[in-house]
Amino acid sequence: MSSPRSLTREKWAFGATILSGKLIGLMVVLAVMFTLPGLLPGVAHAAAPAKPTEIETSMMNTMNTVWTLVAAFLVFGMQAGFVMLEAGFARKRETVNVLMECVFDTCLCGILFYAVGYAFMFGWGNGFIGWHGDPSLKATGSWFFLQNTPDTYGSTGIPVIAHWIFQYAFADTCSTIVSGAMIGRTSFRGDILYSIGITGFIYPIIGHWAWGPDGWLALMGSKGNFFESLGQGFRDFAGSTVVHTIGGIASLAGAIVLGPRLGRIFKRDDKEKGGMPPGHNMLVAAVGTFILWFGWYGFNPGSTLSAMDVQGIGRVATNTTLAACAGGMIAMMLGLWMGNTKGKFDLGFTLNGCLGGLVAITCPCYWVSPLGATLLGAVAGAVVFGAMYFIEWLRIDDPVGAVAVHGFCGIWGTLSLGLFASGQFGITGPAGADNSAPVTGLFYGGGWSVLEAQAIGTFTIAAAVFAVAGIMMFVIQKLPYPWKLRVEPHGETGDGGLDVFDHGTEVYPADEEEISLKGLFEKETVPVQA
Amino acid sequence: MSSPRSLTREKWAFGATILSGKLIGLMVVLAVMFTLPGLLPGVAHAAAPAKPTEIETSMMNTMNTVWTLVAAFLVFGMQAGFVMLEAGFARKRETVNVLMECVFDTCLCGILFYAVGYAFMFGWGNGFIGWHGDPSLKATGSWFFLQNTPDTYGSTGIPVIAHWIFQYAFADTCSTIVSGAMIGRTSFRGDILYSIGITGFIYPIIGHWAWGPDGWLALMGSKGNFFESLGQGFRDFAGSTVVHTIGGIASLAGAIVLGPRLGRIFKRDDKEKGGMPPGHNMLVAAVGTFILWFGWYGFNPGSTLSAMDVQGIGRVATNTTLAACAGGMIAMMLGLWMGNTKGKFDLGFTLNGCLGGLVAITCPCYWVSPLGATLLGAVAGAVVFGAMYFIEWLRIDDPVGAVAVHGFCGIWGTLSLGLFASGQFGITGPAGADNSAPVTGLFYGGGWSVLEAQAIGTFTIAAAVFAVAGIMMFVIQKLPYPWKLRVEPHGETGDGGLDVFDHGTEVYPADEEEISLKGLFEKETVPVQA
Amino acid sequence: MSSPRSLTREKWAFGATILSGKLIGLMVVLAVMFTLPGLLPGVAHAAAPAKPTEIETSMMNTMNTVWTLVAAFLVFGMQAGFVMLEAGFARKRETVNVLMECVFDTCLCGILFYAVGYAFMFGWGNGFIGWHGDPSLKATGSWFFLQNTPDTYGSTGIPVIAHWIFQYAFADTCSTIVSGAMIGRTSFRGDILYSIGITGFIYPIIGHWAWGPDGWLALMGSKGNFFESLGQGFRDFAGSTVVHTIGGIASLAGAIVLGPRLGRIFKRDDKEKGGMPPGHNMLVAAVGTFILWFGWYGFNPGSTLSAMDVQGIGRVATNTTLAACAGGMIAMMLGLWMGNTKGKFDLGFTLNGCLGGLVAITCPCYWVSPLGATLLGAVAGAVVFGAMYFIEWLRIDDPVGAVAVHGFCGIWGTLSLGLFASGQFGITGPAGADNSAPVTGLFYGGGWSVLEAQAIGTFTIAAAVFAVAGIMMFVIQKLPYPWKLRVEPHGETGDGGLDVFDHGTEVYPADEEEISLKGLFEKETVPVQA
Repeated sequence: MSSPRSLTREKWAFGATILSGKLIGLMVVLAVMFTLPGLLPGVAHAAAPAKPTEIETSMMNTMNTVWTLVAAFLVFGMQAGFVMLEAGFARKRETVNVLMECVFDTCLCGILFYAVGYAFMFGWGNGFIGWHGDPSLKATGSWFFLQNTPDTYGSTGIPVIAHWIFQYAFADTCSTIVSGAMIGRTSFRGDILYSIGITGFIYPIIGHWAWGPDGWLALMGSKGNFFESLGQGFRDFAGSTVVHTIGGIASLAGAIVLGPRLGRIFKRDDKEKGGMPPGHNMLVAAVGTFILWFGWYGFNPGSTLSAMDVQGIGRVATNTTLAACAGGMIAMMLGLWMGNTKGKFDLGFTLNGCLGGLVAITCPCYWVSPLGATLLGAVAGAVVFGAMYFIEWLRIDDPVGAVAVHGFCGIWGTLSLGLFASGQFGITGPAGADNSAPVTGLFYGGGWSVLEAQAIGTFTIAAAVFAVAGIMMFVIQKLPYPWKLRVEPHGETGDGGLDVFDHGTEVYPADEEEISLKGLFEKETVPVQA
Repeated sequence: MSSPRSLTREKWAFGATILSGKLIGLMVVLAVMFTLPGLLPGVAHAAAPAKPTEIETSMMNTMNTVWTLVAAFLVFGMQAGFVMLEAGFARKRETVNVLMECVFDTCLCGILFYAVGYAFMFGWGNGFIGWHGDPSLKATGSWFFLQNTPDTYGSTGIPVIAHWIFQYAFADTCSTIVSGAMIGRTSFRGDILYSIGITGFIYPIIGHWAWGPDGWLALMGSKGNFFESLGQGFRDFAGSTVVHTIGGIASLAGAIVLGPRLGRIFKRDDKEKGGMPPGHNMLVAAVGTFILWFGWYGFNPGSTLSAMDVQGIGRVATNTTLAACAGGMIAMMLGLWMGNTKGKFDLGFTLNGCLGGLVAITCPCYWVSPLGATLLGAVAGAVVFGAMYFIEWLRIDDPVGAVAVHGFCGIWGTLSLGLFASGQFGITGPAGADNSAPVTGLFYGGGWSVLEAQAIGTFTIAAAVFAVAGIMMFVIQKLPYPWKLRVEPHGETGDGGLDVFDHGTEVYPADEEEISLKGLFEKETVPVQA
Repeated sequence: MSSPRSLTREKWAFGATILSGKLIGLMVVLAVMFTLPGLLPGVAHAAAPAKPTEIETSMMNTMNTVWTLVAAFLVFGMQAGFVMLEAGFARKRETVNVLMECVFDTCLCGILFYAVGYAFMFGWGNGFIGWHGDPSLKATGSWFFLQNTPDTYGSTGIPVIAHWIFQYAFADTCSTIVSGAMIGRTSFRGDILYSIGITGFIYPIIGHWAWGPDGWLALMGSKGNFFESLGQGFRDFAGSTVVHTIGGIASLAGAIVLGPRLGRIFKRDDKEKGGMPPGHNMLVAAVGTFILWFGWYGFNPGSTLSAMDVQGIGRVATNTTLAACAGGMIAMMLGLWMGNTKGKFDLGFTLNGCLGGLVAITCPCYWVSPLGATLLGAVAGAVVFGAMYFIEWLRIDDPVGAVAVHGFCGIWGTLSLGLFASGQFGITGPAGADNSAPVTGLFYGGGWSVLEAQAIGTFTIAAAVFAVAGIMMFVIQKLPYPWKLRVEPHGETGDGGLDVFDHGTEVYPADEEEISLKGLFEKETVPVQA
């Protein structure tokens, strides 16, 4: 470089010109290097991640929003699967009731989750309930009816209005699960009342504990919170506990309060005549299971809320698949080797085994390896098998196995994270994964802390739901006719069953109608044939 | 800066070098600032939106195309829902006919929309019909069979070949709706003829009025057009009028020309025996409704043709949900409180209420708030309920409620924009929303002009469709056997009904076959058992 | 420019400063020009494609991965369609068996494709089988159980873990197809055995020939390979041969080894009583077809593995639609004009015609024009019609037409590329299409070489599958009870058929149960009524 000492004034002038040009050039270089790593060799391999430009950020947000919305649509599509599964496993006489409950719950949930649910669950507030915006942004207006919500949710870059529909589809799933174990003897007005409780209050408020921005289970292990020494919060990636256990345990509470359907004989009481009445349409139940499985590809991979985390979404999708496969196979084999279906390849157990695997993988899907997913899904298949016999042994009438599949496998899946978390994966984010603080389970040398956090979370939630939902169901049951939870006996046993009693129609009314119409036709067709 | 005056020739040479370097540097800085705002402080917060680079533009086009295609697939998937809904609401004896019409219409629509429909609807031409490319680009070769089409459609950045399949799925929806009110007495050859008319001509040509690049309804309020003083064109975001009202009203014209099914007794004529024959399979109808609702998430959010408008696609998805929920709840309550289903929670009304809400929100989904969507969906639930009784009172036989759901709610939804447009949202675009000229309805202080434009559009289209489709149906009805619209009476009333007459099979033929096969088996199995 | 000759030392110093500034400036300009064409006029229109930055590359990978995953989900969703189609076309007595096979195959396929299938098919190895990573990267650890796989697959930019689930869904499709022609007389244990063979070995190993990175059919026409002079490798864009012909031909081998169902009479043998037993639920079969068609939009457009190729994905989606439409229409017309269904619009033929068109377009979808797609789809409709009669004439019992639809149309579609490839389209890629070496078929002046390559590929694969699957099926048939392929005669002909024999339940058991429960109810309800 030239020595400034020897420069004349003119040269200084030159120098200034040069220097300013150089500085601008350097600024550009630095700016370009900063914003576009990969442009220059050396920078490309720098550890610091690139800072995206405004347009790039908006494109990332677009990709993540598209991912979230497509996932939301798939999760909503699960309703078609649920309605098929529940209707298929129901007796014919209660099928319209099942259909009507699923449709009604979906409508009710939309209105309530818009009015209060989203605010309770995803708003800031305290560890137990949310209702407003981020206090650190001084945004404390209440979120009821989606008022005062910011453009995007937290740091996700996803519009709140898109996050809402994704979470609505989850809430609706929980709501529909509850009807499962209560099929066939719940009065429709009772269904309306308990659905308001589950959808509007129990699910979003208890869900806040785990998924709210300041939920006490989410934060319990972090600095300044009540279980700081654990060093772990409760994790539930896509809702084994939050969606499935809440739904399954609330359903259990309902089934206990209701008692079994009239005419239901348990195996314990009569070895010969006892046992679950078979579903009236196994074709529909099987198709429903496939549609649920299909929708689960929105449920789990969509829960990243991030498409940029490409390894994450691929891994979650693959883990979801393997757990379902393993669960179905194990349940089929157990059905073949033992129990009432010994020697037969039982379709019902196999379907519920797949679903059990799916429920179980829902919590740990992001943090386990494909091998872990396969193993924990296989265990879920056994959990379903055992739990269905256990529920029957307890003389609880659960026509679709909702308690076994959603309640028990939800708990198992949540705990399994503490065992199988592979120590490779940390948290997802709008620009990609951050694996700098990976989650490690017991089997991978991570010790007991994750398992402990998971146990605290899932058992606390299960107990809370059982208590609150049980009280609610009990209170509804004490209401006077027609609002009490259980339908009048003649509503169950009359001609056409619950369907005709509460809904005025049978599910396949055509056969009789066909006959009456044929009479009309014959009169009319006489001249035609003449 | 140095003074050029005092410079020697050499220095001038230097100066030139420096200057040129500086200029290049500045050019780079300016170019980078221009293309990558966010790169330098100050620029990042400039109001002017960033101009994307070529790669960024191509990535935006990719995201928008992926969004449009996924939406197209979902809309196509609605066919599974339609076929279930229509088959479920049909009597058993006409079910194969319903299935066959949906399958055939889907096939026919593909061929015709490829041959002529897309050109009629989305090509340039005049206000009433299109057939060629943009005249301002001197691209006036005809678009029949997708010849001469440009790479991308208009300013969307979406390939024409991707836009085609999205619009095909819409056309197919309209085509399938028409068969709804005509179930059970239309000869299949008649169905072929009217489907050619609807799919190949009526839908795309009348659709051009609203959605064509030079459609007269779209442009009526703009400068130099016939209703310049209104200052509003006709708006139909995803087709309440263009798809649903066209389908519903054409169906109404067909149902009137056909008359009711033999043996159909109206409530007016016989209080006791009268009324809609119940659908033969309510399970399938309910599942079909969920699948339609699922597919609607392609129908409405996909109509942005833009994923970059993240707030828009989220809002449309949420509005669609809330309108469906509200429509279903209101229709259920009206069914509970009045009419023939009083005291019962009627599944059919609830399903049609959800669909009515979906149809109604289809036009205004982009421009209304969640509250507006809820309210207008609720009204749609009442419209469905009232319109179904009205159609029955008119002695029109509409087995699935297509006229009420698609015709009436389509009109209501289109008008509702004039009431509920919230004054916040303008137009969508490939790089995002442009809300600089928001649409404001009467209830939000926008005055009557939007409502007026909507009324002109929807009533003109409804009247035109009723006239043209009515004439077409009437002419087909006058054709000689077997081409006339209505099947021969013995085709309707014979054993197995229309299914056996036109298609040679029943929908569930197994039972009888089972018996005949069993006879065969028994003979064969005698030696086995011996 | 200044002459360096006349410069003093000081000026040299200056010069160095200036020069270095200039060089940095130029570097930046060049770098920016190189990475961001479109930034400067002139560069924008340069032929060389822009080199994306690291962030841009990661966003492209994200878009392509999202596309691939959404497609994978849709392909998985086809299982719901398959199960409906097969169950609908089956007799009632074998429906649970059909359901169970589809569910079980899906589970088994997941485990096997994870354990060995993916490695066999997509790993490097030799021309006939793969099992490890790219030898050019010295990555030769085996891929069993997805061990040792790289982050992304080949040059696609798609994570292996996302590629896996897409390919799993394909494998599962093939696996499910096989069960089609074997419905109604295969023992479930036999099904387990042959499914292990098909899913774990035959499909992935023979698939490797065409789709493996070093598959001999893929590479045969390239330099240094056995048929270099042909200059063409075997092309199968989305698997007309790899998925459908393998499935269809394996099914044929199974059907031949099994023989027809007991009681099945062929038309040749008894003009009156002979012929295919009708499917027991045509409603379910029709809905299944629509769901399959819907899922095909994942199958074909997803096979680009690239969303950036927007013209490609749009074209593939549109071609897929048109081929299905044309296939359905032609099959319907042939059914109307000739054969046993003469004079009737036959639903079964129409559904299978659509599916035949879909199978046929699966191979050539990327390389043909919409017109070509329409024509080759129409031919496929005729192929289905003719092949179904041919199979029946051969006294082979194929209850769902799997051999005609998947086997024959797969071959036809693969060959059709050699006729209809339009000479406009080359290969797809993660950043977009590369049409510099387009594929041209016979009808577009490309000569015979593409057709020759296609014929070699599809007939070799068909023959190999027929031989290997035939031997496997034959061996399983020779196993002792209960492992032999064909169920015992009393399993087929007993009360409730195969469903009760192997699975212990009927598909619609409710009616009888309803009666027994009713008895229980009546006893219980007597005091209630009193």
